[in-house]
Amino acid sequence: MAGGGTIGLVAGAGRLPFELARGARGAGRRVAAVAFTGFADPALAGEVDAIAWIRLGELGALFDALREAGAREVLLAGNAPKQQLFAEPGLVRLDARGAAFLGALRDQSDDRILRALADALEGEGLRVVSQAAYAGALLAPAGVLGAVAPSEAQRADVAWAWPIAKAVGRLDIGQTLVVKDRAVLAVEAIEGTDAAIRRGGALGRGGVVVIKIWKPEQDPRFDYPTVGPDTLAALVDAGAALLAVEAGRTLVLAREALVRAADAAGIALLGVADAEDAP
Amino acid sequence: MAGGGTIGLVAGAGRLPFELARGARGAGRRVAAVAFTGFADPALAGEVDAIAWIRLGELGALFDALREAGAREVLLAGNAPKQQLFAEPGLVRLDARGAAFLGALRDQSDDRILRALADALEGEGLRVVSQAAYAGALLAPAGVLGAVAPSEAQRADVAWAWPIAKAVGRLDIGQTLVVKDRAVLAVEAIEGTDAAIRRGGALGRGGVVVIKIWKPEQDPRFDYPTVGPDTLAALVDAGAALLAVEAGRTLVLAREALVRAADAAGIALLGVADAEDAP
Repeated sequence: MAGGGTIGLVAGAGRLPFELARGARGAGRRVAAVAFTGFADPALAGEVDAIAWIRLGELGALFDALREAGAREVLLAGNAPKQQLFAEPGLVRLDARGAAFLGALRDQSDDRILRALADALEGEGLRVVSQAAYAGALLAPAGVLGAVAPSEAQRADVAWAWPIAKAVGRLDIGQTLVVKDRAVLAVEAIEGTDAAIRRGGALGRGGVVVIKIWKPEQDPRFDYPTVGPDTLAALVDAGAALLAVEAGRTLVLAREALVRAADAAGIALLGVADAEDAP
Repeated sequence: MAGGGTIGLVAGAGRLPFELARGARGAGRRVAAVAFTGFADPALAGEVDAIAWIRLGELGALFDALREAGAREVLLAGNAPKQQLFAEPGLVRLDARGAAFLGALRDQSDDRILRALADALEGEGLRVVSQAAYAGALLAPAGVLGAVAPSEAQRADVAWAWPIAKAVGRLDIGQTLVVKDRAVLAVEAIEGTDAAIRRGGALGRGGVVVIKIWKPEQDPRFDYPTVGPDTLAALVDAGAALLAVEAGRTLVLAREALVRAADAAGIALLGVADAEDAP
């Protein structure tokens, strides 16, 4: 398995590609990134051994780049926010493989696209490696993460809202729910976690409880729910009281800084071990 | 049943109390409104035979007012947006009955509160009359309402999103979904239909499909999904292409003006007969 060969890193937006690149190189792998223009951070070039830039939709070019880099294994990391796609359709350029891929999709839900992409990569003889292989240290532990303990009322809100969040996730709508006093204030759809948090905070006038779950249909190889400094900034703006994430299934980026900032803001961080659909 | 006696109209926000008052008076009933301060429109006084103002939460006062008015039947009309409640907690004043009522609720979902209120009224010997009894003419018909016909692609989006909207409704989160190209752009929670439509339109950059459904748990006596001129203003702002509502289970306020405005804006209006949970 694994060994010291080249691993391909298919890189979208956010910090996760950086973390996975570091993790893989730390484990002795050569990392060849194929990055999506307009989504991946150009600074990623400094964290990998090689980088090729393509447009979202250039599936043939993706396969070619991975093959040329000598990758037999692939990590999928980072996202391509639909919001950005609607705003800048020019970021997408379909090549023949990409057009065929899109035409064969039953719908354009995130889950469907990612799974189909993973299948297409495996169909090319590439193995899609779980993010947890190189980012396991980032997984949220169960229990209280920082110095602020949730109140009983907040824990009750989490328990009440958890199955609702799971049901929304099962519909592949989004991962985030903002609740207060057993009322759902906001549901994340394509606006993303941070916007949903800010909206829920404004509607609830602070003191809100934010829940980010593992969608039951998510693939454990990629697509881990992720929280990081941006999430915390949104929680602060929202006057949130608590963030609950799924223990063992949520990647926490820059954890030390995040916990410190949460403590300073009086925000409780809770890792919840989900019983419902544990793998 | 019915007859020409006094009917009590428990009135919250919006135009619906006006429509029901007119409908009931048109049918020969004397209408005694009990209106919630800060929610009901003061102009309602001009449309009813008597009006008493109370605060939300004054359940004892509500019973007293209905009894004093000589009402044996009651219509529940208009809402009390949670968003407004969070913003202006002073609008709520619990009396002893109100406090007991709230304490006995399992949660504060809209459905739960309305059903419990109806039960409490019936426990006082009052019959809660279906809104459709006096607003049946407002119910959306099946098919295309205006001059603009939906495209095949828009109809496909409606068919794809309908069961998702129903599932979200079953969770008692909200009634409205904004979709485009088989992706869910926005889910309504407590921000309300119009804000959800505007958000979805901005995220999708126009051309969005809006679906407003009957929540499977809604009580056919009250709580009909309602669309009206405000909805249309939101659709125009959102650059929406289509509004689909549930035929026979959605109240359309000011229909003539609404259809005219939709036609002018090129927005298709569609009444969908739902098979899944027809009563």
